[in-house]
Amino acid sequence: MNNTLLGKDLVSVDNLTQSDLKLIFAKTIEMQELAQTKGGDRRLAGKIMAALFFEPSTRTFSSFITAMQRLGGGIIPLNGMTNTSIEKGESFEHTVRVFSVYADCLIIRHPLKGLPLQACQYSKVPVVNAGDGTGEHPTQAIFDTFTIFQRFPTQKELVISLVGDLKNGRTVHSLAKLLAKTGILIHFNFISPKILEMPEDIVRSVSLYNQHISVTDNLAKKIAESDVIYMTRVQKERFKNLIEYNLIKNYYQLSKKMLAKSKKDVLIMHPLPIAAGEISADLDNDPRSIYLTDQLQNGLYVRMALLDLILRK
Amino acid sequence: MNNTLLGKDLVSVDNLTQSDLKLIFAKTIEMQELAQTKGGDRRLAGKIMAALFFEPSTRTFSSFITAMQRLGGGIIPLNGMTNTSIEKGESFEHTVRVFSVYADCLIIRHPLKGLPLQACQYSKVPVVNAGDGTGEHPTQAIFDTFTIFQRFPTQKELVISLVGDLKNGRTVHSLAKLLAKTGILIHFNFISPKILEMPEDIVRSVSLYNQHISVTDNLAKKIAESDVIYMTRVQKERFKNLIEYNLIKNYYQLSKKMLAKSKKDVLIMHPLPIAAGEISADLDNDPRSIYLTDQLQNGLYVRMALLDLILRK
Amino acid sequence: MNNTLLGKDLVSVDNLTQSDLKLIFAKTIEMQELAQTKGGDRRLAGKIMAALFFEPSTRTFSSFITAMQRLGGGIIPLNGMTNTSIEKGESFEHTVRVFSVYADCLIIRHPLKGLPLQACQYSKVPVVNAGDGTGEHPTQAIFDTFTIFQRFPTQKELVISLVGDLKNGRTVHSLAKLLAKTGILIHFNFISPKILEMPEDIVRSVSLYNQHISVTDNLAKKIAESDVIYMTRVQKERFKNLIEYNLIKNYYQLSKKMLAKSKKDVLIMHPLPIAAGEISADLDNDPRSIYLTDQLQNGLYVRMALLDLILRK
Repeated sequence: MNNTLLGKDLVSVDNLTQSDLKLIFAKTIEMQELAQTKGGDRRLAGKIMAALFFEPSTRTFSSFITAMQRLGGGIIPLNGMTNTSIEKGESFEHTVRVFSVYADCLIIRHPLKGLPLQACQYSKVPVVNAGDGTGEHPTQAIFDTFTIFQRFPTQKELVISLVGDLKNGRTVHSLAKLLAKTGILIHFNFISPKILEMPEDIVRSVSLYNQHISVTDNLAKKIAESDVIYMTRVQKERFKNLIEYNLIKNYYQLSKKMLAKSKKDVLIMHPLPIAAGEISADLDNDPRSIYLTDQLQNGLYVRMALLDLILRK
Repeated sequence: MNNTLLGKDLVSVDNLTQSDLKLIFAKTIEMQELAQTKGGDRRLAGKIMAALFFEPSTRTFSSFITAMQRLGGGIIPLNGMTNTSIEKGESFEHTVRVFSVYADCLIIRHPLKGLPLQACQYSKVPVVNAGDGTGEHPTQAIFDTFTIFQRFPTQKELVISLVGDLKNGRTVHSLAKLLAKTGILIHFNFISPKILEMPEDIVRSVSLYNQHISVTDNLAKKIAESDVIYMTRVQKERFKNLIEYNLIKNYYQLSKKMLAKSKKDVLIMHPLPIAAGEISADLDNDPRSIYLTDQLQNGLYVRMALLDLILRK
Repeated sequence: MNNTLLGKDLVSVDNLTQSDLKLIFAKTIEMQELAQTKGGDRRLAGKIMAALFFEPSTRTFSSFITAMQRLGGGIIPLNGMTNTSIEKGESFEHTVRVFSVYADCLIIRHPLKGLPLQACQYSKVPVVNAGDGTGEHPTQAIFDTFTIFQRFPTQKELVISLVGDLKNGRTVHSLAKLLAKTGILIHFNFISPKILEMPEDIVRSVSLYNQHISVTDNLAKKIAESDVIYMTRVQKERFKNLIEYNLIKNYYQLSKKMLAKSKKDVLIMHPLPIAAGEISADLDNDPRSIYLTDQLQNGLYVRMALLDLILRK
């Protein structure tokens, strides 16, 4: 397969084609095999990945630096980017240009939507968006999609319920857009409190592919029909008004009991961390729950795949 | 020798047998040889060690990440674990489960006693306790024991004085328990202010092996007979009451003068850092002092040995 | 060429000879070739570099850890050194001695002038000064000098204007001293506000080599004659008096317009970060500006060269 990702930026799922996805998924399976047998190898030896997290993270940060090192590459691990040149007054452009001289790719997380895209203009090396404010989180969307397709490899139609803060959750933005163009028929349930509904532009994007959309705030009603229930955290850090946050943080709390009428092979997913009981602990070890197992594991394999595809000639 | 540590947790010295120790010490000598000739090699290439330090550290943290890299492995270096998913409300269980998906082993330091043990229940990969509150510090105890035995290879009897905050010092808890079961006769001097005496359970543990214990607050009286004088810092961070801390922080201050009648080959040891003059600077370069030389160096070799034994089939 | 840097400290440019420089420059060209073709190799495998930054940094820190990893070495990345043994009360001497047991070299940045030099007394392994207060920044001086000589390989005479805070700027201290002894005739312009003039000892050092020095606060007048205009940031963190800082922070602001009468191949350099408009953004992509291109890139190559020379037998 022609490596269409070589040397490319990945800031949004918008530019990913079905054939890109096919390429990434094939490479992901190769990486899974590699990780499970030998842990890794030295294919990216001599290469450096700068992890520039302007907003601190644990999971995504650790997942990327693990992926790079499993392939023999080196890291510039800057989680938080405090006490830096930026505090001395340096522009975002200069910071990006500097790291693009040191490293072979930049993994950027930023609290402001659009900054990773902006970084692409400044950088000489590929930029990967690791989450930008309420914008996108394309690598998460890719491994979530991989996970769903690995579990339902032959299905031509899926009911996928996205639940929680659909307004601010970048994960569900990227995921909805990416799933929409995978070539199979998706019945989306966008389930959120009224004030946290999926943004218009995401809805439009999904509609372009003639996918079905149902909008509701009633999770219970949608459980029985779902193939995937994708829960999300109401992200405190996105609220300016904490009163509003407190009113809705416990809006959805998925429990074993609520799943009584679910399909037997429904997938319970979550981008983690689970912070306010949006999935009750009694589901952590339920076979339907894959947020602490497959979903997480695939995150590592997909990031290994992406680094290999983007960086290795 | 059969590798009894492969894939095992190491959270307490309690489960270590004499034969485990023998295995670790043999491997440590191999590592010493490797480090002194080539620096390291690539035997753990493709493997990842997550250093999850919920309580910040410099020395232990750096020693572990050095050990892993000298053997070719990769690292997730999280010193402090601030600004993390935990702050977003994630449970300790989830954090542990997440990292056990990314990494091949977890090195955990935690301010609360017992948390590394708890982590073993959640983790799919081996957990090593790098110090838990007033609990244990098994890797330190192992290299302290290695250091003592390397210096006194043929002695059948040793007088070992543990000095300072024996109540809160996890290092001396692990060390006393481990030394007690090495198969030679130990005369322990537990030397501390009354309010910082060795906890009952440690005393009981040591007594099980019929070792001699003498309890006193008088360091001067015990110097002449000691083969090892193991000084410890009164740890400010363990005191709720700072008035109490200030009263006793300078209780013991070992100086060259006090050692006038010591045995010629007595070992002055300390787990570092030395913070309140508990060993005076005039001893730093004394041949009897090994806290900045052998003891420290062996810490690196023992940790290399443990990582190799636990991780490599 | 005999490797005169093997196992040596590098804390000041004072001890560097012309032949050392020749050696470093030859190795730098080798590293440039290596980095541009293969990214790096494994020549420092098994070696560990401790980056002990007592004053936080982004650029220098990242540049060093990148250089080490491109050559296959491991890192102890301590940027900021907060929450450490030092906070528990450990002496600088002990901290240095500890890391010199773990690592094969120490890269030290410190807010106090002279501390890296002091570290040499304590350390068993080579110490590299990565910037000490208002003191020196020798690695920056080396790659700045390399950059100038690469651009003017045959010139026997150069006009070099150092501009900005010459009093507190360690970069220009090291650079002036190093350029002075390269064996070609330098006409220095030391351009600064009266209160930020180049320190006497640096001026004396430069004069020893019979170089020409002109002191002025007028940048405009010196532009036409300059081969190199080396701008520096007025460093807020060096001022005790912020009123003074605010008065002069915008003293020099180099713009395209001001360069109307410059030589065609003048080099605009800056150690970065640019923080208060001392170079206007319209110059960032001007062919005369090399602070975001050659100068930065050479920093990486020179640090790779130095690590290789100092560490590899």
